[in-house]
Amino acid sequence: MDKEQMKGLSPRQIRKLIREGKWDRDTSGLAPGYAQANLAIIPQDLSFDFLLFCQRNPKPCPVLEVTEPGDPILRKIAKGADIRTDIPRYRIYQKGKYVAEVKDIRKHWRKDLVAFLIGCSYTFEAALLNAGIPLRHIQDGSAVAVYITNIACAPAGIFSGPMVVSMRPIPQEMVVRAVQVTSRFPATHGAPIHIGDPKKIGIPDLKKVNWGDRPRIEKGDVPVFWACGVTPQAVAMEAKPELMITHSAGHMFISDVRDEELAAL
Amino acid sequence: MDKEQMKGLSPRQIRKLIREGKWDRDTSGLAPGYAQANLAIIPQDLSFDFLLFCQRNPKPCPVLEVTEPGDPILRKIAKGADIRTDIPRYRIYQKGKYVAEVKDIRKHWRKDLVAFLIGCSYTFEAALLNAGIPLRHIQDGSAVAVYITNIACAPAGIFSGPMVVSMRPIPQEMVVRAVQVTSRFPATHGAPIHIGDPKKIGIPDLKKVNWGDRPRIEKGDVPVFWACGVTPQAVAMEAKPELMITHSAGHMFISDVRDEELAAL
Repeated sequence: MDKEQMKGLSPRQIRKLIREGKWDRDTSGLAPGYAQANLAIIPQDLSFDFLLFCQRNPKPCPVLEVTEPGDPILRKIAKGADIRTDIPRYRIYQKGKYVAEVKDIRKHWRKDLVAFLIGCSYTFEAALLNAGIPLRHIQDGSAVAVYITNIACAPAGIFSGPMVVSMRPIPQEMVVRAVQVTSRFPATHGAPIHIGDPKKIGIPDLKKVNWGDRPRIEKGDVPVFWACGVTPQAVAMEAKPELMITHSAGHMFISDVRDEELAAL
Repeated sequence: MDKEQMKGLSPRQIRKLIREGKWDRDTSGLAPGYAQANLAIIPQDLSFDFLLFCQRNPKPCPVLEVTEPGDPILRKIAKGADIRTDIPRYRIYQKGKYVAEVKDIRKHWRKDLVAFLIGCSYTFEAALLNAGIPLRHIQDGSAVAVYITNIACAPAGIFSGPMVVSMRPIPQEMVVRAVQVTSRFPATHGAPIHIGDPKKIGIPDLKKVNWGDRPRIEKGDVPVFWACGVTPQAVAMEAKPELMITHSAGHMFISDVRDEELAAL
């Protein structure tokens, strides 16, 4: 199957294809209008500290759902979905080291695992596009530029580290609108954390990305920075938990929640 | 001292008076413009479930700060404040039973206690008054009417129960404005959860309050219901933790955070 054939399928139908092994590629553009989510699975003994880290750093870590310890079934953003099978690709980390990429984590599941589903920037990117704001990386079919900043997250227990941000070049005259549009989506990183000067937040050179692709910046564009869902993963990895499972980059969980349902109440 | 003499004092100055035992009465109207907070202190072994309960029920349980286990010092909403001494009156509960009201909990503090500071409706009431919307209970100098509804909170671990709401009679022509004004403050319960018909949310008779005073409803007023910070306390009490400490009703924690800083980003 290709993305053309996936058009018009509901989140539930797409999750079924993923579960049956019929879709194992990235999820960008699938089920437009529905929120996708980042995944981080950790053992229960770290889950209070990790949830507290998210509570203290809501812009990089907007929590959409936390599963019951040991229970792989979601109840809120996609009732009945199985977090062990419904994501196209997972990455397994042991003591902070990447050990494998797999399409199913049923074999790795344990009674003490807790899954955190965290808001993803696809939601606010859709809102930006709907508002007529061009996104260079989408025009180019490349990955958004992602950087490590010098902004310290508020630590919690063993979890601490710098905020990771994504950068989108926005035409000067649209910067205010971009702030307004993304402010409506606090559950998917919300308003920018910085506008204009990368050096002010510890980024020496926009050409040198830490993740994603080198950005194309047009004349008259201003770099605008948003807190990024890579932050909790990077921070968790640094803490070197004995086991951690995440989605593979770009291979997100597709929820039943409409983007608009995540807009600020 | 009386409230007249407290006028113009900063949150820090007021907390000092409270700490020194010079103010042990309610905090309503003190340090106008600054957010006040509800308090719930529980042992660490319940703290993940309780934080998760708050995460799943953000309208009744908007978390402003969670302390490190065993550490009574706040770091975020009032840097350096001591949660054991800086609230005028506390209530001690053992296994869900009220056992004492005290002005200082240093003797009750333990290495495994975690304090949750939760947003309080004083913030959005100030915003409503600033918008010219009359609040009957404030006009009358009475306590806001509080009811138990039939709306189930999303459970988490041992914590479950119905949502508790406060009701304010709002003149019909100001209801839309009241929704708009309070929507800006998700960290202090946010938009109403219901407008109009108490029976729809399981309240048979507005005259029969569960907490607070019987409301005065003027001709042309519509009852408007907001999620209430009593919810997490009521739910925690039901779970009968071996020890739980809360503020006494109306005797809140006064933070250094301005109401406007809590407005939705």
